Amino acid sequence: MTVVRFYFDYISPYAYVGWHLVLRLAEARAIEIVPEPILFAALLNAHGQKGPAEIPAKRGYVFKDAFRKAHAAGLGPLTPPPSHPFNPLLALRATLAAPVESRARAVTALYAATWGGGGGVESAASVARALDDAGLDGAELVRQASTPEVKSALRVKTEEAIALGVFGVPTLAIGSELFWGVDGLAFVADYLDGRDPVPADLLATWSPLPASASRL
Amino acid sequence: MTVVRFYFDYISPYAYVGWHLVLRLAEARAIEIVPEPILFAALLNAHGQKGPAEIPAKRGYVFKDAFRKAHAAGLGPLTPPPSHPFNPLLALRATLAAPVESRARAVTALYAATWGGGGGVESAASVARALDDAGLDGAELVRQASTPEVKSALRVKTEEAIALGVFGVPTLAIGSELFWGVDGLAFVADYLDGRDPVPADLLATWSPLPASASRL
Repeated sequence: MTVVRFYFDYISPYAYVGWHLVLRLAEARAIEIVPEPILFAALLNAHGQKGPAEIPAKRGYVFKDAFRKAHAAGLGPLTPPPSHPFNPLLALRATLAAPVESRARAVTALYAATWGGGGGVESAASVARALDDAGLDGAELVRQASTPEVKSALRVKTEEAIALGVFGVPTLAIGSELFWGVDGLAFVADYLDGRDPVPADLLATWSPLPASASRL
Repeated sequence: MTVVRFYFDYISPYAYVGWHLVLRLAEARAIEIVPEPILFAALLNAHGQKGPAEIPAKRGYVFKDAFRKAHAAGLGPLTPPPSHPFNPLLALRATLAAPVESRARAVTALYAATWGGGGGVESAASVARALDDAGLDGAELVRQASTPEVKSALRVKTEEAIALGVFGVPTLAIGSELFWGVDGLAFVADYLDGRDPVPADLLATWSPLPASASRL
């Protein structure tokens, strides 16, 4: 059973679309999906990069593009949460607090609350309600989310992702092979089927390319 | 005849793939493609953003991803230029120096030299050779590329693109509607056919969304 790690943050509508694409992939194949909640803002800090919502020209574009991608994936109209950007820490931590076997259900429920027309995940009440609706004990998971163990677990997950080379969400990892974004996920099926066109020595050939110019 | 502006820089392998997708789109539809060479580095500067090649974790990923996208577009193995990043100014300016009616041919030739297994576009000789091969007067276009008029024209094109909200390459513009990246270009056909799913009031609804958190 191939283990497929799905790195995501509720802040990202692309990761919402990607989550449903990965669930669909798992229906047709013998893969085990491991949802890995991470803090996108920490990736940006680690790489000294701006997020899409932090570049005014990009923010509006990304809303439209994510709407189109949700539509193309058959997910119905993408609906924004009450505020954006919002603080996703509680939702990420509550996901990690869920038992491993019900974590995927928690992700689906919290993502529906965020981008699927629910009430958002900004408050403890809304996070608990979404988890209750998924048949989990929302109040208990919200309580556990504020324990030092769970807070630390999210930091560790995020640091592991950065060490693996993850620079954005969603990122799907099969071993050390990464697939980033809704468009990157389109290549996963071929990769799993042994039909990835990338030659094994591609990075050995390309990585040492000399730079003949830096930022002009 | 719908005018479609294609903003690009030779530095970007995604814009190479995108250029061929747009050429194909034009075979099937009554659109007029206007190639708009711009300096990607100036976009990054304007938006305070890092380019993919400037984030170590992202650089290798982008090579693989662009290779996969070129393969999916049926372009054959993507082949890197002799150096990367390189200074694209001469190639961009020589493109602008070409007469409007042969500019698309210049783009195809210079892109083939950059990512299609040619000798790159780092030197005046290689730029002239690529243009010669396309039936243009390479030496003359290279000469014109260093005139103040052409240098200024590239700056103006780039500033116009930034004013239009362009933040990356490739970007295709139909009026003020932008489509960014190889994945964004996938939505152009539906847009041209009046089947874009984005409701007219989407940005009016989404843009005023309050932020309840900034970078954590």
